[in-house]
Amino acid sequence: MKRIWVVNPNTTETMTAGIAHCAQAVAGPGTVVVGVTSPFGPPSIESHYDEAMSVPGLLDVVARGEQEGVDGYVIACFGDPGLDAAREVARGPVVGIAEAAMHTASHLGRGFSVVTTLGRTIGRAAELSERYGMDRFCRGIHACEIPVLDLETDPMARKIVTEACRDAVESDGSDAVVLGCAGMAEMCAQIADDIGVPVVDGVTAATLTVQSLVTMGLGTGKRGEYAPPPPKRYRER
Amino acid sequence: MKRIWVVNPNTTETMTAGIAHCAQAVAGPGTVVVGVTSPFGPPSIESHYDEAMSVPGLLDVVARGEQEGVDGYVIACFGDPGLDAAREVARGPVVGIAEAAMHTASHLGRGFSVVTTLGRTIGRAAELSERYGMDRFCRGIHACEIPVLDLETDPMARKIVTEACRDAVESDGSDAVVLGCAGMAEMCAQIADDIGVPVVDGVTAATLTVQSLVTMGLGTGKRGEYAPPPPKRYRER
Amino acid sequence: MKRIWVVNPNTTETMTAGIAHCAQAVAGPGTVVVGVTSPFGPPSIESHYDEAMSVPGLLDVVARGEQEGVDGYVIACFGDPGLDAAREVARGPVVGIAEAAMHTASHLGRGFSVVTTLGRTIGRAAELSERYGMDRFCRGIHACEIPVLDLETDPMARKIVTEACRDAVESDGSDAVVLGCAGMAEMCAQIADDIGVPVVDGVTAATLTVQSLVTMGLGTGKRGEYAPPPPKRYRER
Amino acid sequence: MKRIWVVNPNTTETMTAGIAHCAQAVAGPGTVVVGVTSPFGPPSIESHYDEAMSVPGLLDVVARGEQEGVDGYVIACFGDPGLDAAREVARGPVVGIAEAAMHTASHLGRGFSVVTTLGRTIGRAAELSERYGMDRFCRGIHACEIPVLDLETDPMARKIVTEACRDAVESDGSDAVVLGCAGMAEMCAQIADDIGVPVVDGVTAATLTVQSLVTMGLGTGKRGEYAPPPPKRYRER
Amino acid sequence: MKRIWVVNPNTTETMTAGIAHCAQAVAGPGTVVVGVTSPFGPPSIESHYDEAMSVPGLLDVVARGEQEGVDGYVIACFGDPGLDAAREVARGPVVGIAEAAMHTASHLGRGFSVVTTLGRTIGRAAELSERYGMDRFCRGIHACEIPVLDLETDPMARKIVTEACRDAVESDGSDAVVLGCAGMAEMCAQIADDIGVPVVDGVTAATLTVQSLVTMGLGTGKRGEYAPPPPKRYRER
Amino acid sequence: MKRIWVVNPNTTETMTAGIAHCAQAVAGPGTVVVGVTSPFGPPSIESHYDEAMSVPGLLDVVARGEQEGVDGYVIACFGDPGLDAAREVARGPVVGIAEAAMHTASHLGRGFSVVTTLGRTIGRAAELSERYGMDRFCRGIHACEIPVLDLETDPMARKIVTEACRDAVESDGSDAVVLGCAGMAEMCAQIADDIGVPVVDGVTAATLTVQSLVTMGLGTGKRGEYAPPPPKRYRER
Repeated sequence: MKRIWVVNPNTTETMTAGIAHCAQAVAGPGTVVVGVTSPFGPPSIESHYDEAMSVPGLLDVVARGEQEGVDGYVIACFGDPGLDAAREVARGPVVGIAEAAMHTASHLGRGFSVVTTLGRTIGRAAELSERYGMDRFCRGIHACEIPVLDLETDPMARKIVTEACRDAVESDGSDAVVLGCAGMAEMCAQIADDIGVPVVDGVTAATLTVQSLVTMGLGTGKRGEYAPPPPKRYRER
Repeated sequence: MKRIWVVNPNTTETMTAGIAHCAQAVAGPGTVVVGVTSPFGPPSIESHYDEAMSVPGLLDVVARGEQEGVDGYVIACFGDPGLDAAREVARGPVVGIAEAAMHTASHLGRGFSVVTTLGRTIGRAAELSERYGMDRFCRGIHACEIPVLDLETDPMARKIVTEACRDAVESDGSDAVVLGCAGMAEMCAQIADDIGVPVVDGVTAATLTVQSLVTMGLGTGKRGEYAPPPPKRYRER
Repeated sequence: MKRIWVVNPNTTETMTAGIAHCAQAVAGPGTVVVGVTSPFGPPSIESHYDEAMSVPGLLDVVARGEQEGVDGYVIACFGDPGLDAAREVARGPVVGIAEAAMHTASHLGRGFSVVTTLGRTIGRAAELSERYGMDRFCRGIHACEIPVLDLETDPMARKIVTEACRDAVESDGSDAVVLGCAGMAEMCAQIADDIGVPVVDGVTAATLTVQSLVTMGLGTGKRGEYAPPPPKRYRER
Repeated sequence: MKRIWVVNPNTTETMTAGIAHCAQAVAGPGTVVVGVTSPFGPPSIESHYDEAMSVPGLLDVVARGEQEGVDGYVIACFGDPGLDAAREVARGPVVGIAEAAMHTASHLGRGFSVVTTLGRTIGRAAELSERYGMDRFCRGIHACEIPVLDLETDPMARKIVTEACRDAVESDGSDAVVLGCAGMAEMCAQIADDIGVPVVDGVTAATLTVQSLVTMGLGTGKRGEYAPPPPKRYRER
Repeated sequence: MKRIWVVNPNTTETMTAGIAHCAQAVAGPGTVVVGVTSPFGPPSIESHYDEAMSVPGLLDVVARGEQEGVDGYVIACFGDPGLDAAREVARGPVVGIAEAAMHTASHLGRGFSVVTTLGRTIGRAAELSERYGMDRFCRGIHACEIPVLDLETDPMARKIVTEACRDAVESDGSDAVVLGCAGMAEMCAQIADDIGVPVVDGVTAATLTVQSLVTMGLGTGKRGEYAPPPPKRYRER
Repeated sequence: MKRIWVVNPNTTETMTAGIAHCAQAVAGPGTVVVGVTSPFGPPSIESHYDEAMSVPGLLDVVARGEQEGVDGYVIACFGDPGLDAAREVARGPVVGIAEAAMHTASHLGRGFSVVTTLGRTIGRAAELSERYGMDRFCRGIHACEIPVLDLETDPMARKIVTEACRDAVESDGSDAVVLGCAGMAEMCAQIADDIGVPVVDGVTAATLTVQSLVTMGLGTGKRGEYAPPPPKRYRER
């Protein structure tokens, strides 16, 4: 049995529930997917500050997972916070949802558009697309200016995101859309139906990517940059 | 039940058998994987000429698969021949083994090495790594100068490939290795054990990638470049 | 006497005639240019499928040319189909019309625009511009949505292409225009006159490029990737 | 009077003292430079984990500085941890020492080499060089495999670093060297004398860069990505 | 005492006076900044021809400066003419104002816009942004079509430049603006006040960059490409 | 009759004679090629300083050519000095020999090596390869450390250059070689014979490129960046 933890690096448990639901829906019968909420940090991640401050909580979860023998991890925030550090800490694979979503979308055509929450997060998404080599596929990153937690509560949210996706495909001439927030995962199928274009949710994409890696017996290479971090005595706050 | 065809674009059926065996070993219980040999063309693909001449046979297989309702396809040659054309023809996803292997390896660290068969194929592998955005992860492409079909018959083949992998990791400072030929698929686990570094086989990676795409209901975007090709009256040979 | 074959990789002989006429008009007195039509395959090339299926016919022509002692070849389709394979097969130089047109346009200023036929071919043109290093000069690729064979028959074709060229120069701020289809070759001079900007036709550009290479005694390097393909027993259809 | 804080994001105060000494030595008469040690976190930064865990302490210092009216900040670790988040929090400029050192070295010729501490940090340095656009100048990143804190205590440290610099210049054909650790700041002048090539220390380079920015009245643009982070109720550990 | 010459490579002395005034305003108390006008060549630099023809006069000034023991030089034209040659001739650092302005702006956010004089100079600015690695930060280069010398005399000039800056920030989504002409230096503070976004003038940025380099004892690396040019007997005009 | 001037931008007339001889040998019967020596400036170009100082003499030649109705120009120095300025001044095409040689070599395979004179010129050659988009083909630039004028007089010169070419092909795995100095033009055929790999001389390549452009009626686009330079009253030396 493969055990995958889908870690929500913010502290909002209702959001974790939605994420876990989506991840579990695609996992194979030999895989147990558990959603885990970060024990401390920001309630949502909407700035570089939030993102940086979410990482210690995320790493705390991964360290716990290692003690419990977890096989692989998904980082369920589109900024992929703490990815490199988590790869050092974990024995098995760790994949971010921006990473998985962009890679997945690259298999669907010549180019994709990203639709995200707040405009101020576009810079981070662009930086990640470059880091993953996906900037050559990423034709535009578009904000719908809905705060992360309002995705769950604003009754107009799905409609606004859907229209942003439709406009993005049109203006960018894209073959597919990537949803730029874990909080959009549950909207994915409906948006794809509405706009008639493939739409990629990173939570499911990353869950399946980690499941595939575990199936192949693959994890982060551990002989160089991603070896376990040298143990040290940290000064407590 | 998901139906995936793993297409060997050369005409050597023993090679198809090995490829199919590897692909089936990683597929989930809800997936039927079938290995299909190209009906005409080159017995192995070791030049641009071979590759170009393999494409009509491959597209013939895909067209047949579409009639039979196949859900997705793997192109099981590391030159990923005919990928764009196959994406036009197929309704569902099509993934090449170079594509899948390189994407997979990019999740395992900062950089990977490729070990392939003949030196004359290095240029094509490099071109693909760039096309997929994976050139930033690909630190070197190394030939072991074993012809494709000798991988099955030469008793020294696995040892030579293993040493080439070990040397590549050392000289490139890589976190992982990608095997650059479908004919190396069956060696993968043993090489990984021998050298202590993650080793990626494209056949299994592509099979799992296609399975994941089908699970998510994703296929090639069909409203632009990859729409079905306009029907025409071709002149017969 | 230098012998150059300008190969039309589709099967439409009226199109070959127009291409040959343009090529012959620029060749020097010591050069014999012959237009050759592909013996089988698609009547026009407007998809990745068409392009892939045109390559065996093209390679058949090149193989015949080698037996007849041809000095160099032009591939007269803007997708430059089969270029790498033809370079393996031919002793002398082989140049594609997209390749030659883009290189030529790069000598004329800081940037050029491409005007092509159908929008679905833009992705291929972009890929070629990158392969040739010409993406830094290529400021935009614009479709006029005229099917290839209608270029010969539609009485409005030249006017539509001319307006597309004029608009492209304006919107891209380009110094020159590249015509993105062999079927546009005969329009070139008139369009340049009409819009007052240098306009490059790939058929003439490639013919002169091949003539220059032959004059200098240059052909594809044959000691590595482009050595003659290893002979094999292909399975017949 | 301009007030600049040079923040050591690790908790080792002797290292802060050395850093501050170097920074103060180059500051102008109208500038007060203060070295500040992070109040909690790792004693040295030698992994992605250390780096991620150092950021909350660093941001704590910056928040305190904002209350005290500090004009600008240097992040004195070659991984430039927390740079984007600190730019959101601070009104004035924030510059990392890798950033400043690489920019500075780019003014000194066609290419530079970086000499850093542990090999496992090379990936991060390479990533930063790309982020800053300095990868086109950065010809090599070389590790001397001395742990950060041993730079202060190992009597052979300066000799080893000097030889690594000399070798790097030779093998890379570089015009200058960048020292890849704040702990090397005090060695800089001596190494330059020994090897006869310009050597750049990021601590002094960043201090002068911040001083220049403050002199020009320049700080991070605050109307988009780097606006102050939206205030939120964080869950405590 | 550090001696810096700010060289105006055109022959218009009123322009030199404005440049020198801006440079002196930011220099530290230990620095003497002198503005020097090129003794021969074009009265303003608005074409590649002007730029090329300005270089001998500029190099004449630098050679004189070397005899007088000058510590560093600013090239005060946004085309950074003669930068490489001046680096060969000078012992100390030489920095162009485009170079310094772009580097400076890169510290202020994710991207900047450039506002320059004539549209025909945009190509050169783009080429420089790439050379310095700053193309990843440069989101747009915009011309206000005011000739260089009219910046001093046209009563509407500052208003036009200000509006061009405001529009550029809006259309590019930039965090900062770079002024693309030495003749705009004196407008800088007012424009920044008017538009509420950081605005960078290259004259002050380059002066402070050179001052910082001299403070650190850094100059062009002299062991390779930038060694003093081999002495030769030139043929006189 | 097409008239092409091959301009030697240094003042050494014996070198012009050799260059002209090579150019005339490849020109068609309808082309008159004239070699022209720069009237003032450096006797050879071996530094950025030499190159910058050669440009006024070169532009003087081009201006004279325009008065005499010359159809196109070759700049016969591998640093391609003054190319942009000459394109503004001339009505017809202007091509540099580095430009033409690299473009030509790109038609011959996947990658080429450059063999040049002094190591200090490598940086300029690399910059040009990037400007022309040819860096993706250029696998290495190698110096043989023979000063330019010694190419004519040193009896060992051709042997040394030949060995440098052979070594470059081997170490870079290249398909072709580019000779990096106009002074090597006369050696080209012999070196190609000796090493059995295509060798490209820029003088002949550029002459044929200009001849082809003139044949097609193409010249620099004149409506933007390369419009004639605005006339001005220059201050005399």
